[in-house]
Amino acid sequence: MNKGKESSEMSELGTEMGSLIEELFPICRSITGDGVRETLSIIKQHIPITIHEVKSGTKVFDWEIPDEWNIRDAYVEDEQGNRVIDFKKSNLHVVGYSVPVDKWVTLAELQEHLHSLPDQPNAIPYVTSYYKKRWGFCIAHKDRLNLKDGKYRVVIDSTLEPGSLTYGEYIIPGETEEEVFLSTYICHPSMANNELSGPVVATFIARWLQSNPRKYTYRLVFIPETIGSLTYLSKHLDTLRKQVVVGFNLSCLGDDKAYSYKTSRYGNTMADKIARNVLSFVDPNYVKYPFLGGGSDERQYCSPGVDLPLVTLCRSKYGHYPEYHTSLDNLDFVSEKGLSGGYNLVRNCIFAIEHNKTYQGICIGEPQLGKRGLYPDVSTKTSGGSVETMMDFIAYADGTNDLLDISEIIHKPVWEIVPIAERLYDAGLIKEVKGSYHE
Amino acid sequence: MNKGKESSEMSELGTEMGSLIEELFPICRSITGDGVRETLSIIKQHIPITIHEVKSGTKVFDWEIPDEWNIRDAYVEDEQGNRVIDFKKSNLHVVGYSVPVDKWVTLAELQEHLHSLPDQPNAIPYVTSYYKKRWGFCIAHKDRLNLKDGKYRVVIDSTLEPGSLTYGEYIIPGETEEEVFLSTYICHPSMANNELSGPVVATFIARWLQSNPRKYTYRLVFIPETIGSLTYLSKHLDTLRKQVVVGFNLSCLGDDKAYSYKTSRYGNTMADKIARNVLSFVDPNYVKYPFLGGGSDERQYCSPGVDLPLVTLCRSKYGHYPEYHTSLDNLDFVSEKGLSGGYNLVRNCIFAIEHNKTYQGICIGEPQLGKRGLYPDVSTKTSGGSVETMMDFIAYADGTNDLLDISEIIHKPVWEIVPIAERLYDAGLIKEVKGSYHE
Amino acid sequence: MNKGKESSEMSELGTEMGSLIEELFPICRSITGDGVRETLSIIKQHIPITIHEVKSGTKVFDWEIPDEWNIRDAYVEDEQGNRVIDFKKSNLHVVGYSVPVDKWVTLAELQEHLHSLPDQPNAIPYVTSYYKKRWGFCIAHKDRLNLKDGKYRVVIDSTLEPGSLTYGEYIIPGETEEEVFLSTYICHPSMANNELSGPVVATFIARWLQSNPRKYTYRLVFIPETIGSLTYLSKHLDTLRKQVVVGFNLSCLGDDKAYSYKTSRYGNTMADKIARNVLSFVDPNYVKYPFLGGGSDERQYCSPGVDLPLVTLCRSKYGHYPEYHTSLDNLDFVSEKGLSGGYNLVRNCIFAIEHNKTYQGICIGEPQLGKRGLYPDVSTKTSGGSVETMMDFIAYADGTNDLLDISEIIHKPVWEIVPIAERLYDAGLIKEVKGSYHE
Repeated sequence: MNKGKESSEMSELGTEMGSLIEELFPICRSITGDGVRETLSIIKQHIPITIHEVKSGTKVFDWEIPDEWNIRDAYVEDEQGNRVIDFKKSNLHVVGYSVPVDKWVTLAELQEHLHSLPDQPNAIPYVTSYYKKRWGFCIAHKDRLNLKDGKYRVVIDSTLEPGSLTYGEYIIPGETEEEVFLSTYICHPSMANNELSGPVVATFIARWLQSNPRKYTYRLVFIPETIGSLTYLSKHLDTLRKQVVVGFNLSCLGDDKAYSYKTSRYGNTMADKIARNVLSFVDPNYVKYPFLGGGSDERQYCSPGVDLPLVTLCRSKYGHYPEYHTSLDNLDFVSEKGLSGGYNLVRNCIFAIEHNKTYQGICIGEPQLGKRGLYPDVSTKTSGGSVETMMDFIAYADGTNDLLDISEIIHKPVWEIVPIAERLYDAGLIKEVKGSYHE
Repeated sequence: MNKGKESSEMSELGTEMGSLIEELFPICRSITGDGVRETLSIIKQHIPITIHEVKSGTKVFDWEIPDEWNIRDAYVEDEQGNRVIDFKKSNLHVVGYSVPVDKWVTLAELQEHLHSLPDQPNAIPYVTSYYKKRWGFCIAHKDRLNLKDGKYRVVIDSTLEPGSLTYGEYIIPGETEEEVFLSTYICHPSMANNELSGPVVATFIARWLQSNPRKYTYRLVFIPETIGSLTYLSKHLDTLRKQVVVGFNLSCLGDDKAYSYKTSRYGNTMADKIARNVLSFVDPNYVKYPFLGGGSDERQYCSPGVDLPLVTLCRSKYGHYPEYHTSLDNLDFVSEKGLSGGYNLVRNCIFAIEHNKTYQGICIGEPQLGKRGLYPDVSTKTSGGSVETMMDFIAYADGTNDLLDISEIIHKPVWEIVPIAERLYDAGLIKEVKGSYHE
Repeated sequence: MNKGKESSEMSELGTEMGSLIEELFPICRSITGDGVRETLSIIKQHIPITIHEVKSGTKVFDWEIPDEWNIRDAYVEDEQGNRVIDFKKSNLHVVGYSVPVDKWVTLAELQEHLHSLPDQPNAIPYVTSYYKKRWGFCIAHKDRLNLKDGKYRVVIDSTLEPGSLTYGEYIIPGETEEEVFLSTYICHPSMANNELSGPVVATFIARWLQSNPRKYTYRLVFIPETIGSLTYLSKHLDTLRKQVVVGFNLSCLGDDKAYSYKTSRYGNTMADKIARNVLSFVDPNYVKYPFLGGGSDERQYCSPGVDLPLVTLCRSKYGHYPEYHTSLDNLDFVSEKGLSGGYNLVRNCIFAIEHNKTYQGICIGEPQLGKRGLYPDVSTKTSGGSVETMMDFIAYADGTNDLLDISEIIHKPVWEIVPIAERLYDAGLIKEVKGSYHE
């Protein structure tokens, strides 16, 4: 784990997140099975999630929960008994959801079941086959080229049988039933940025939320991707559509190369507004990805008829860094500093949600700040600068803009505006009016 | 006729269009007269147009159909009997609508009746005087400079007498009374891009339309510019306003230098939407001309109170190439390849109109494409690419976007999206809903 | 006074404006007091303004009119009797609203009451302390560095006592009660661009208005900044909100470096539309300043609940040139040419307001301009250019666009369009329809 450079304040949290990611890394997760259960039980040591099981065969909209897959061992052995591929060295070596096999094959036959990346010869690719029964192995391309003619014993000690899909849920009640929805996935084997950074940041955000006062109710889910979000939606669609005011899918939050988000389907929800606003101050060079072109669970949460106000928050987004979906997305790719940055991004978004209000001024014309000690009492050429933000805030706090709108108009982050709003509110110069939290 | 380079598929059509343009080129057309009739009778050998005559003096909104002009010969002869200007060599030599004359004039007098282009010394300009009685000749500037002092006999053997304005019309019925309106003009003497490319492409589009199934009714008119479109509008305004869903004015479609379109008055009609969309895929460097600054019949079709949903489709647009309105806009300026490109542009626009529908998905959440054989059953790092267009289509087929909207959103041409829509429709995953064809 | 280069037409007016600015320059103005009265009495020699007095202590929204300040003399004398700072040399030397003082102080004590600008060592800064009682002097930084240890006699012969706030008002009735509101301020001591250019341009605009026919009623006010505009608003809020259709705050109109305007709060009023339009033709490089970041009386006129349709017109805007609020903003900084440009900007805006109408064409299709002598009767390759503006005007004079809209669409200034509209109106081709003057 690369510790990176980090302010002392965040370094303790960064270290804790780093420890959790290291503990979860070796587990072989998939969309079902004991790897998911073990992962959730470790997370449960940090926050009191509820673990749910949904039976194989259950109908989930257009889908069906598949059989449960578990794997104990897998290897390819040559005639001399050398293990040329060994699941115990990396759980990426086996194609996810491979059916059991134990037989001798020729190299030619073996090749038909191998996956490698000629352009990344040192990387073991990550490959799955959830919905068609097959078996296969993944291997670094440089090692594949070294395979000699001959016979190989292929062994996959797996089971694919009726069982259940497992997910975790944690609801932290707030003052109101309106909800902030946080979703992250726990279905990938040993890869660090995509995916462990997501559940780890979510865990520590939950720990912070539960020990602080909050207006909104927070609903966190730790689910397998796609089939998990569909499953969760199928059980809670009406509630989510009614209660969720903002949602974030958390993924790829552990490196320190970039900040980004992926919009909702039309890019026009409250979640888009918050992500755009917070990211513009966190990193002016942040990347905005369109909804197009493949994706993660936001595909389900934002699908027609579901339409939750949700975006995906990322640092280096899945599919946009070369280590993605290979053995190179490992503990060296993420850092404590990177995780802290991802954590802070989510916290700043939550700060913006929690403090977003619509204010209206009470005076006609500008108020006289000076008599309330809010204005410098001597006017020089440069004295204006320090109160300009306050005056600009007052100009646009006209009952039509929420704090995010004002932040966009006056180019100041919400966390600088909130203290100003509170001073003006305490001085009796503004009042709160009813505003909508939907964009 | 420059044959250009052309795929074999289109080359036969290109050759046919090239032959027709060569046949029509020598005819001396004007806004009235036998040149128009001869042109229409040749077109009638290809498609069954109806030829209409409207009498001189007929009121047409703020205008009146002028007397009919016919010309047999015209020349300027020096004292030695040399024809220094000869209509038989180029019909551009005589100013359109010149009244008859036969007299001897000095060079000085002659000069007052000559038109030439000092900046294009080899080009005979195209000049007309429809609504004021005068006579005149057009001459290459280099030849004008060679005229010697002396007397010249000027002869214009023309008639300008009550007669009629002639136009052609062809209505190809479809499943619905809603119409696609195609207009092109047939009032210019020997010039190839502006104007013969328009009627030639229109003729071959009509031939294709009449032998293929179609949803819309197609109304094609071959008219003299301005007075002809006003005449047609004055007879059919209510019908056109009620039935036309998309219109295209076809002009300057024969060169291979550019693709362009000229917007409707506010650039916000279904025709604009189709032209923008199709051109963006046909030629990303296409030129969008504003409605401003002179024009063709779209000036009438889009005028206030008429407001047909219509744009002008061009390759190198009138007024934007130096050969325009001179003898250099000849058979060398256009090519079979250029005509084929113009023809294909119009066909692609018609494809877009005919196939434009609004679909809505049937599933909640994304459908499971895999079980229907629409998705690769093994998920590798790059397997997403091939189905992304399908998934993106499904995301935006939500009952609010027609195929053109989706095409714009997902950056794929309509002709790539239509087969996807048909596969998904056949698989029962989307249904058609009522959408509007007006932007 | 720099005369600049100027067309002969404007040079007489420029000279007159230059003379007035020179006459007003030496007066020591503040937000109250005899300097304001003297300034207004000089302006009254040019235009018949009414002078109003509002008593100290009067409540003005959240504010209260302060005591009146007058000053006769002020200086700092060293032990040898040398005046090291002398109000008689520059009235900027004394902090505005300084309370009276006459005592000996050490240099250290004196320093606590001095203001200078290390970055502009030759400039005396302009400093005020309206709402907190203190005294102080302003000095060029290079002179401050030369002050020697020792005792200094500080004398400020001022009074700060109940009195009144003074402002001037001039209402020029028009055909309608709808008003154009012009506001400028007269509260700064000897500075030329900010502020005297504003009242001087306003005075000459008023002189021009009163001797020309006009549709709108014009309301001009000459007021102290902030407290003056609040005072005026508090007395006339309902009338202004009901009657003002366009307002301009006039300030910094005397240099020849730039043209600019500062938008209304949301940049969407008729005043913004006019300023944008006129400036785009006056100077394509004009600067558009946002409402943000401190300002002048537009802060009050555009505040929530007041919301007059008003922008501030400037050449080099306050706060955006280094001489601002120092002794360097003197008679050398402005020029007769600069003032003439500022004057013309305001006149062009008024021309646009006065002539802005909504027209609708009468014909269906384009009218035949030729038979009315409005079109060249011979059509050559280039004859189109000269009538294109007329045809473009007709296309967009469809009852939905006012002249400013058409100006934006066809990229021609209102002063080129108005004569065209008048010719077409006289020819019976367009009629006037009711349009709104609010954007």
